[in-house]
This record gives sequence, C-alpha cells and structure tokens, in this order.
Amino acid sequence: MTTENLISEIRKKKSFLCIGLDVDLEKIPEFLLKEEDPIFSFNKAIIDATHQYAVAYKPNIAFYEAYGLKGWKSLEKTINYLNEKYSEIFTIADAKRGDIGNTSSRYAKAFFEDLGFDAVTVAPYMGKDSVEPFLAFKNKHTILLALTSNEGAFDFQTKKIDGEELYKQVLKTSKQWKNSGNLMYVVGATKAEYLAEVRKIIPNGFLLVPGVGAQGGSLKEVCKYGLTENIGLLVNSSRGIIYASNTNEFAEAAAREAKTIQLEMKAILGEFF
Amino acid sequence: MTTENLISEIRKKKSFLCIGLDVDLEKIPEFLLKEEDPIFSFNKAIIDATHQYAVAYKPNIAFYEAYGLKGWKSLEKTINYLNEKYSEIFTIADAKRGDIGNTSSRYAKAFFEDLGFDAVTVAPYMGKDSVEPFLAFKNKHTILLALTSNEGAFDFQTKKIDGEELYKQVLKTSKQWKNSGNLMYVVGATKAEYLAEVRKIIPNGFLLVPGVGAQGGSLKEVCKYGLTENIGLLVNSSRGIIYASNTNEFAEAAAREAKTIQLEMKAILGEFF
Repeated sequence: MTTENLISEIRKKKSFLCIGLDVDLEKIPEFLLKEEDPIFSFNKAIIDATHQYAVAYKPNIAFYEAYGLKGWKSLEKTINYLNEKYSEIFTIADAKRGDIGNTSSRYAKAFFEDLGFDAVTVAPYMGKDSVEPFLAFKNKHTILLALTSNEGAFDFQTKKIDGEELYKQVLKTSKQWKNSGNLMYVVGATKAEYLAEVRKIIPNGFLLVPGVGAQGGSLKEVCKYGLTENIGLLVNSSRGIIYASNTNEFAEAAAREAKTIQLEMKAILGEFF
Repeated sequence: MTTENLISEIRKKKSFLCIGLDVDLEKIPEFLLKEEDPIFSFNKAIIDATHQYAVAYKPNIAFYEAYGLKGWKSLEKTINYLNEKYSEIFTIADAKRGDIGNTSSRYAKAFFEDLGFDAVTVAPYMGKDSVEPFLAFKNKHTILLALTSNEGAFDFQTKKIDGEELYKQVLKTSKQWKNSGNLMYVVGATKAEYLAEVRKIIPNGFLLVPGVGAQGGSLKEVCKYGLTENIGLLVNSSRGIIYASNTNEFAEAAAREAKTIQLEMKAILGEFF
C-alpha cells in the first residue's frame, strides 16, 4: 500500500487507529478454544467487528511464534483474511527483526512477499546494512524502532551520543539510507513530549505510536505533538480493545472500545483540519 | 545446558566451533530438492558429518521463516534431531529478538521451552525489561548483540556515549540485570582488536564470534584477544562449512572444512593450556 492510500483511508474513516492483534489463548473467551483455530476465529471476529473504526492491524509476531506451527498457521490465515476481505487496511507485522544484510533480505521477503504485510517493524542496532534490505521493497514500509514505550527505553535510547540522544541519531542517520522514503518510526506514547523532538527531525513521516491506553499514554498529548498536515500518526491499542470483554459479546465490546477511540480521533482531526 | 557442561564438551572435543545452519534452498545440492523436507535432510547430513568437530549449532531463524510453515517444520525437526541424537551439543536460535516485557516472555518460551534451544540471540536496543524475561530461564543462555560483524555496526554500536562506545555501555549495563549470569555476547570477528576491549568488561563470560571465514575474520586474532581460562569463546562458521560443496559429497566436504577449523582450534588450545 502507498502512503497516499493510507492517508486517504485515514481521512475517509476519520481514524488513525491501529489495532494490535496480540492474541493470548489464556485471555480470549473460553468458548473459542473449542474451535479448530481459536486464534484465527478470535482475530476474524475482532476484525469484522472493528474494521470500520481502524485503518491498520498489527499482529505482534511473538504471540504467534509462541504457539509454534499452529501459531504461524493462524498468522497466515489472519493476514490472508485481511488482504482478501479488507484490502484497504494497512497491515503491520510487529516483528522487530534486524540481522546482517543477506539475512535481513530473508526476513523482508518472508513478511512482505510471502505473508503479504504492508509493513514490518525493525530494530536499528545493527545499522544501515541490516535495514536497507527491507527498504528495497516498493510500496512496503519499514517501521524502525526509535523510542519505545517501555522502561528499558531509557537504558540506551535516551543516552546521549555527542550531545544528542541515541534515538535522535537513529532518526537522523536512517534518513540518509537508501529508499529512506519507505521508513516510518516507532515512538512510544508514554513519552508524548518526546514527539515534539521527533518532529523536529522527522517533520512529515509516519510514526507508529504504541502505549496509548493500557500503557498509560494520552491520545490528546500524542496528537498535540505528533500530528502533521498529512496526519503522520498511527496510534496503536491492543489489550484495551481486543480484551475489552471475554464473554460471548467480546467482539461487540471490542467494537465499542474501538469506536470510542475513533470518535476521539474524529474530534481531534476536526479541530486540526 | 549449563555453562560447565559446555566448557567440558569444548575440552573433550578440543573444539569451540559453532556451525551456522543458514540453509538456502538455492545453495544446497540439487538432488536434495526431491526429498520431502530438503532443509531437514540437508541439516541432518551436515550434523551427522560434522558433529564430532563442533560443540554448537546455530540455525539463523530468518532462513527458516523465509519458507513459512514449511520452514518452521524444518526448524522443529532440526532442533528435535539435535536434542535427541546429540544432546551434548549446545543449540543456539539466532533470532535477534527483543520486545516489551510480556512479549519477550513469549519469544523466550517459544525458543527455550517449546523448541528446546539452549540459547537465543537477543537485540539490546529496548533495554532491561526486554531482555530480563529471557534471563529468567534456568540453564538457558541469552546471547546479547554487543558488536556485530557487519558494516552497520559502526552506525550506532561504536558511537560514544559519555566517552564510551554504545557496545561497551550495553556490556556494562547488562551486567547489572537480574540473572545476568545467563548472558553471553555476540562480538564480531571482523573486529578482533575490539575483543581486547570487550574482555576488560567481560573477563570471563562466553562470546559468540561470527565472521570468521566468509566474512574475513581470523581465528588466531580472535583467540589472541578473546580466549579465557574457561575458553569463553564460541566461534561460528556458516557458509564456509555447509556450502563447501554442492555435489553428492557435500557432507564429506563440510566435514573436511569443519575438521580443518577444529584442528586449528586444537592447536591453539594446546598453546594456551
């Protein structure tokens, strides 16, 4: 999907909500466990109930890998379902991969071509030749970890190199890489004031913002510092939406939560534009 | 596997060779493609032919993920084969994972418990709470990326924070984490002189050293700076061994290459001890 398509979907739906499909068999409604593929059944119900409020879905790959072959099958079915039924949806494999060149090419091929995701999250620690293989794919997006939403972000990401925090070095350096137009960045909502700093370096690019809701970030704050003319934000919520209820009405409850956030987004977009 | 067991295997085999199982269907002998599971058939033949010269095997997970469900099945069969037939072998999932706490727990469970690897490689960018979930597993080993063997290592890893390179900060900071005794580190052989610097901070821990052979690192240099009383080194070679030949005699060719390195290691160990 092109960035232009994503922006036009956001304007159409008045939503820049991304829903994290982090499926844990211990948290989904018990009656689903009887299904042949409980993870896919859960995802399908959540997607069908919430797609009108969201522009993106983001399965965190760890949750699927944890279930081995079965998990991978559920992931395949989920991305195929999204691509076939809701092709206007932006899909993100939250994989946080990164390896030496020829190996990163493998990961890129797996997520972009074989599975058919629009985007994949990548860790920057190994530098240019570990990220550029992802950037080589046309109309595919590489979402580089810049400033994450967890406590450990302060261990290295905010440490200063030549007077400037590592995450800023990551932003600046990565802008020089080949096909850097295909880059987006992860910037945690729990550090909303940092978004202003990020925008000084990345004035227009898209930021994927986790941490709103369960992790404590505020949507208003995020928008205050992060919104651009072309929106430039995807705000993710996972647990707050998908585990809103674990009764028979889990999908309806998820839809209500997604709609609440979407309405808040609509109001904010109305103020800004 | 405990570190003591690994050390005793190294002393017994007079080898600290780790063989990288980075299987590419375009590079393996063509006749294997007719087999039901060419990747596993290849790995099995390589392992059977080389196990007496090696103490560890390291499948890079990207190569398996690139083949989707089939690839995961091949990976499962490979690790099961190693654990059943060669339980004295140290097994490393080269996955370079790392995510927020509850998600890292998922990855740790997948690689340590479900698949049954002894070790997994992890990226440090997200800090303490992304790594500690891996460290919580007893007699399992977390191999943290410190200084990698690729060019991109100079983008961030060698940049100075308060006068000290990022990779040194990673070494020092990670030593403070809970269960840090379960840590090992990736330090590339293409930067052998850096090993002396690493040893100032990690005098005794194990280092996994990629980049000998195909990537140009020298075994003698690595040992000069990296060997400790308890050896403390696992030196990896992938392509140079597993793709030594793509004829019917590929396994014998791999064995010859592995033996050549093992004999060099034996000579070095003889000099040192």
